[in-house]
Amino acid sequence: MGNRVDIAIIGTGPAGVSAAITATVRNKSVMLLGSADLSDKVSKAHAIQNYPGLPEISGADLARHFADHLKRMNIPVTDRKVTMIYAMGDYYSLQIDNEFVEATTVILATGVSFGKPFPGEDENLGRGVSYCATCDAALYRGREAVVVGYAPKEEADVRFLAEMADRVIYIPVYKKEETAAMAEDLFPDRPNVEVRKCRPLSIAKKESKMVLVTDDGAIETDGIFLLRESVSPGKLVPGLELDGNHVKTDRKMATNLPGLFAAGDITGTPYQYVKSAGEGNVAALSAVSYIDSLKK
Amino acid sequence: MGNRVDIAIIGTGPAGVSAAITATVRNKSVMLLGSADLSDKVSKAHAIQNYPGLPEISGADLARHFADHLKRMNIPVTDRKVTMIYAMGDYYSLQIDNEFVEATTVILATGVSFGKPFPGEDENLGRGVSYCATCDAALYRGREAVVVGYAPKEEADVRFLAEMADRVIYIPVYKKEETAAMAEDLFPDRPNVEVRKCRPLSIAKKESKMVLVTDDGAIETDGIFLLRESVSPGKLVPGLELDGNHVKTDRKMATNLPGLFAAGDITGTPYQYVKSAGEGNVAALSAVSYIDSLKK
Repeated sequence: MGNRVDIAIIGTGPAGVSAAITATVRNKSVMLLGSADLSDKVSKAHAIQNYPGLPEISGADLARHFADHLKRMNIPVTDRKVTMIYAMGDYYSLQIDNEFVEATTVILATGVSFGKPFPGEDENLGRGVSYCATCDAALYRGREAVVVGYAPKEEADVRFLAEMADRVIYIPVYKKEETAAMAEDLFPDRPNVEVRKCRPLSIAKKESKMVLVTDDGAIETDGIFLLRESVSPGKLVPGLELDGNHVKTDRKMATNLPGLFAAGDITGTPYQYVKSAGEGNVAALSAVSYIDSLKK
Repeated sequence: MGNRVDIAIIGTGPAGVSAAITATVRNKSVMLLGSADLSDKVSKAHAIQNYPGLPEISGADLARHFADHLKRMNIPVTDRKVTMIYAMGDYYSLQIDNEFVEATTVILATGVSFGKPFPGEDENLGRGVSYCATCDAALYRGREAVVVGYAPKEEADVRFLAEMADRVIYIPVYKKEETAAMAEDLFPDRPNVEVRKCRPLSIAKKESKMVLVTDDGAIETDGIFLLRESVSPGKLVPGLELDGNHVKTDRKMATNLPGLFAAGDITGTPYQYVKSAGEGNVAALSAVSYIDSLKK
């Protein structure tokens, strides 16, 4: 992943896409991290009435317009998940699986799809609860783990984890239409993976074991992986000031951490496409100003 | 102009257009006041790179997209100038020429084209200096006036004023290309109008007369009309809290006056199309919430 980038943008919804476009117009080097499909939330919207200039557009079409805009400006999407962001003084270090990427500034635009933590989740994070199968798989050699997956793409991580662990219980919590195709033989090549349909409720520690309580009983295991679309901002960036579930920003989209900006749903309601796009633009220009001020 | 509207939106740039679209989606009655051509600043932009979803679009094309969006949603533009907005308690009264329109909420989206006041302007406003020829023409029956016009459309007001006043000196301060066609005979039907090319510098009072000082000498007259594209927000809305030249808002685009919101360039830098569109959206939804809260 090479040298330090000027602006790392986390999230490929309207806020992240807008930030990447404006940062590129302003000649900054950008790493746009998110999904190659940009945003499920955009793509699945039925009809968007109020994105000015594109009347009555379907979510899929708006996503295509965004993808086309990125393509014309030669902005690639890095389809990898950032699990941790560390403030290092005059730059940030982003953990992506087991690699680290350096960026002078960061724009958080991950949306609000991280959900509420389970009871017992926060206390046991890093002590039996993990958000990154790729990072921590090696710890489970010869042991057992439970994986809660929030999207079909997490199945790749389950497959990888099952190469290390003796036994993996996989609990997919996708929407119905996405699981219709899902059968007992979701992992025919991994006989040590058991797929269970149940709803996780809470997490507890029991001596050296972890317990995942579900609506279908408790599961005792060595470790629990929670693979959500994105990590909640407070866990992603230690020291980041929040306002409830949202990141606190000023009108320039600056957070309490110098060089770290936020845009889109993550900064609060209303959850609206053009509001997010506007904030991405402002965050990018604030990041540009911040970078320029470092050179003085 | 009829009954009280839910939301009066002043300005037809990206902020005003966006606010009108979202307010209409939310089933509020809207009066969108501005220019039938929407926004000169948008239309004259050469190429806009960073309006997400519409890559490398000319200003004229973006304006066409906006106009098309308004048309599809049956949102008309009322092409009249608001000269004063009064807070009346639980509604606002907007002065439009000599009429008054009532609105439960107001969104200011007039941009930053009001310029800096001339020395002597603020002190003499309402005492020899006026922003509204239609409103004050009657005061100049049998007297003289100087009109400084900032756009060709002001010529209609000059013509009207000349029906009342004995003599009118008209100083057009448009850009060159707009005045190329302008000749001595700009008002062939109004022999009492004299057109002068000069640059106004300051305003003073001299006994019962007004003096407009220009780069081509001082002009003594009875009254001075300054017909700008928009009135500066502090003069438009008495009691409105400013931050320098901009209207002070919070993250919900609320001003210090309940029910009055602002969006776009008027709220501060960066002056960017998508930032303005995003703020218009937020201002509209905040106005909707405010209206709904009144009903409780």
